Amino acid sequence: MSDGAVLALSGGIGGAKLALGLSRVLPSGRLTVVANTGDDFEHLGLSISPDLDTLMYTLAGLDNPEAGWGRRNETWTFMAALDSLGGETWFKLGDGDLAVHVERTRRLRVGERLTAITADFCRRLGIGARLLPMSDDRVRTRLRTSEGWLEFQEYFVRRRCAPEVREIEFAGAASAEANPAFLAALAEPRLHAVVICPSNPFISVDPILALPGVKAALAKCRAPVLAISPIIGGRAVKGPTAKMMAELGLTVSAVTVARHYREFLDGFILDVADAPLAPGLDMPFTLAKTLMRTLGDREELARGVLEFADTLREKARG
Amino acid sequence: MSDGAVLALSGGIGGAKLALGLSRVLPSGRLTVVANTGDDFEHLGLSISPDLDTLMYTLAGLDNPEAGWGRRNETWTFMAALDSLGGETWFKLGDGDLAVHVERTRRLRVGERLTAITADFCRRLGIGARLLPMSDDRVRTRLRTSEGWLEFQEYFVRRRCAPEVREIEFAGAASAEANPAFLAALAEPRLHAVVICPSNPFISVDPILALPGVKAALAKCRAPVLAISPIIGGRAVKGPTAKMMAELGLTVSAVTVARHYREFLDGFILDVADAPLAPGLDMPFTLAKTLMRTLGDREELARGVLEFADTLREKARG
Repeated sequence: MSDGAVLALSGGIGGAKLALGLSRVLPSGRLTVVANTGDDFEHLGLSISPDLDTLMYTLAGLDNPEAGWGRRNETWTFMAALDSLGGETWFKLGDGDLAVHVERTRRLRVGERLTAITADFCRRLGIGARLLPMSDDRVRTRLRTSEGWLEFQEYFVRRRCAPEVREIEFAGAASAEANPAFLAALAEPRLHAVVICPSNPFISVDPILALPGVKAALAKCRAPVLAISPIIGGRAVKGPTAKMMAELGLTVSAVTVARHYREFLDGFILDVADAPLAPGLDMPFTLAKTLMRTLGDREELARGVLEFADTLREKARG
Repeated sequence: MSDGAVLALSGGIGGAKLALGLSRVLPSGRLTVVANTGDDFEHLGLSISPDLDTLMYTLAGLDNPEAGWGRRNETWTFMAALDSLGGETWFKLGDGDLAVHVERTRRLRVGERLTAITADFCRRLGIGARLLPMSDDRVRTRLRTSEGWLEFQEYFVRRRCAPEVREIEFAGAASAEANPAFLAALAEPRLHAVVICPSNPFISVDPILALPGVKAALAKCRAPVLAISPIIGGRAVKGPTAKMMAELGLTVSAVTVARHYREFLDGFILDVADAPLAPGLDMPFTLAKTLMRTLGDREELARGVLEFADTLREKARG
């Protein structure tokens, strides 16, 4: 493995697992994780960044492994009191989690950038990796569904992904600026690999790709761009990815995910269970155990991804 | 006791004790409590109303009797998490308490009035008394001290009342509108009594009196206006009242409190321990046990105050 930097693109839970694995197998300071902020929203007057927080909590070892979101050792006194006051309780905010939202909102209101606030939080929480929001500008994922247009969290949490998805848009993406540190990392000659984590391509990765210049920078990038499928054996590991793919008229398969990224993808990590699909991939691939149940699984997959990147770099050189 | 309404003016803890006593001895719907909002402030982006909340929690039976502020059965996960993020922790916000601040702030931001929000919270918490903020407009108590001008909570909580007080101002009071429901209650012909609770006259009651029209309405009011001293035996029951009086060059005595209200006061409730001071009062008075340790004490003082009001009304008629 070279000493170059690794850049991971990630949504929430599935992506965060691999990001944690990468952060543990890479030396400190070598990993940058770019987080989707398309599912950020304002709720109860607070600025909430679910994917950024899941990544932050996971990288800090503060995540709740049972829920897949929020913090471990959480208390729920706020929600109970809010309920007694008639407040909105469909989006669960733990007491400790709330500190992130309140303090971030306060700092955003006095003009600080989300990137700087996130960096400060990560430093205080002892996170060695660099965590970047995909943009400091507002991008909002919206879904046209069988029930009309829904804001992302309305669809995802309030309606529990029940409505049928017909179209997805990333409001604000076209005029947003991709995080300059993200674009700089992509242009860095010593970049070792770009890893698209096993996150939902349509709602977790596409918002990042929708930012001006990102797809072109990925295509131009000298380091191999790799992706890991969140679909194994035709099913999503977690969340609505498979249901959404079917509703969008796509074949629910890892191959569909690889094709989704084909403009800039150099290699694909296919789950061992999906080995029979390999002939359908028209790009370099490797097989790996992509279902990450244990911390060891996360590290093993991270190592496999980095080794695959090495192979691709050698091929390119050779 | 007549069937008229009773209006109480109150700050936080001391006043809230008597307000609770009144709420328990009066039939439902007969008590209106006007709360000081001069010590309200914005903190962490939240609108916080300490006296209003102490009254609300006390009247709802949700108060923390040990602390004298905040809620019982409170948890502190938010503060611990905020501390780990480098947030300001000098003002303690419990997890349940936070729900009031977050939801109130949200509703204020969408244009609701503090009076309406408070009424809705009280209804949901099962409070029978009517609780009114003194005004829906912003009034802020500021103190000129040995360390310069300080915002109220900076002085009271952050500096723990240590700086010497030289002057007190209620910024915004002159242009604020007293709560119309408060002025209407004062003008109500069937008003039975106005009770100035044993709160700090200078920082808890004076902000209410500084609102345009309030002193004149109290002077014109047909019901007797009574006050209970927060000073017993030359000492404050709780808080900085005595220290502040001394710093302002006043004699630390219940008589000073009675004189402070002399423009509109019809009767004074003197603690039994202060009986020797009675000759110094140039107004009707009664003796009572004003130190409220138990719930029974609160009810007994409330009954004593209402009976005293009856006597004064009969005198006025006779």
